Amino acid sequence: MSRNLLLISTSTTHGTGYLEHAEEEIKSLLEGKKSILFIPYARPGGISHSDYTAKAREAFERWGISVSGVHEYDDPVKAVNEAEAVFIGGGNTFVLLRNLYANKLVEPLRHRVLKGMPYMGTSAGTNVAGRTIGTTNDMPIVHVKTFDALQLVPFNINPHFQDPDPNSTHMGETRDTRIAEFHHHNRQPVIGLREGSMLRVKGDGVKLLGPHTARVFLQGQKPMEFKTTEEIHFLMDAY
Amino acid sequence: MSRNLLLISTSTTHGTGYLEHAEEEIKSLLEGKKSILFIPYARPGGISHSDYTAKAREAFERWGISVSGVHEYDDPVKAVNEAEAVFIGGGNTFVLLRNLYANKLVEPLRHRVLKGMPYMGTSAGTNVAGRTIGTTNDMPIVHVKTFDALQLVPFNINPHFQDPDPNSTHMGETRDTRIAEFHHHNRQPVIGLREGSMLRVKGDGVKLLGPHTARVFLQGQKPMEFKTTEEIHFLMDAY
Repeated sequence: MSRNLLLISTSTTHGTGYLEHAEEEIKSLLEGKKSILFIPYARPGGISHSDYTAKAREAFERWGISVSGVHEYDDPVKAVNEAEAVFIGGGNTFVLLRNLYANKLVEPLRHRVLKGMPYMGTSAGTNVAGRTIGTTNDMPIVHVKTFDALQLVPFNINPHFQDPDPNSTHMGETRDTRIAEFHHHNRQPVIGLREGSMLRVKGDGVKLLGPHTARVFLQGQKPMEFKTTEEIHFLMDAY
Repeated sequence: MSRNLLLISTSTTHGTGYLEHAEEEIKSLLEGKKSILFIPYARPGGISHSDYTAKAREAFERWGISVSGVHEYDDPVKAVNEAEAVFIGGGNTFVLLRNLYANKLVEPLRHRVLKGMPYMGTSAGTNVAGRTIGTTNDMPIVHVKTFDALQLVPFNINPHFQDPDPNSTHMGETRDTRIAEFHHHNRQPVIGLREGSMLRVKGDGVKLLGPHTARVFLQGQKPMEFKTTEEIHFLMDAY
């Protein structure tokens, strides 16, 4: 597979502007490209498709890359088939995946990306790149007929990964507990990406980028931490 | 409807034992009953049905109430039909609802509870008492064919409700943002129950109990806070 992906935990880290912390990696992903197709379906805070696309456009135009929103096309499948690159932004993962299915974009996206079209995602857009959306943090505000996602990689991702707060008196589950529960019912690996972390996927290789370590969960095993710039290729062998 | 419900945000508050903070209200709900049917399907942390039932049994036996687990019966529908009262414990809301449907318990539970059988829930067990599970905080670790829940009340509940932490640098959505997103797609009211809070539902009346205020979200309106012991009857008029 000639994958060329950038899977970003969050669009905005504390104290930096939209996509700013990932600028260098985004430029590297999109080298030689003049345009990107933006998929605004996840609608963070319920923002409209147009307003969300305007936000993405502002960021990419600074880097000399033009942005079109998939909702601007009469035929979204054709838009995907003719795109130079695709970016799926964050928001609500259930709303996003439901709209990808409703617009029949799951197969076309998968087909193009596995043949080498650059793909970037942030948050929900990173979640849907995985095997299923079963490790999203989002509220299930709409129903979706299946949790199977784009499956650009064979593992699951948990963006905005948080370590337990030792001072918290809150009794809700920690992220580790939630992912352990996931592994009672599912066997694919899960990688928890802290805010600021990214995965760079090229072909069958996966490298961790950003300032933090990342936490990998395998069914029935103790979680493992991987260092930044480390290759975690075995994630691609999941079946 | 002759409802008689106790909907508890969390089974265990910081510094108290299992169900301890709700002891007085549980005793009042179950007055005159000698037994309760426990539904352990939500399996917190992946605990077995037997171990989870043993935990509930230990709490209730101190109060002179015997506990049976629904998984101990060959015919779970018959178990519901013959129960004096039902308790659904917390854990994962998706796993819980999937198992309620798989065992064909949704209709029998709804039928008995709306005719007056006492019902108590904690966390996921409180979530499924609402209209849908669309306001759970849990990870969608298994798929469920519909998010429609037991609909013992016509509104949605968000247990373990948390206020934004003013010191947090985390960029994930606040609970208010998530519920506002919910209301872009759904119109039923949502009540956020902080840990330690409970709703006591009798007939068509709803009273807030516990040490905290609770936050009510109506579609397109600013959230409202209600005081403890306050009646919030209008929630029952939702349609």
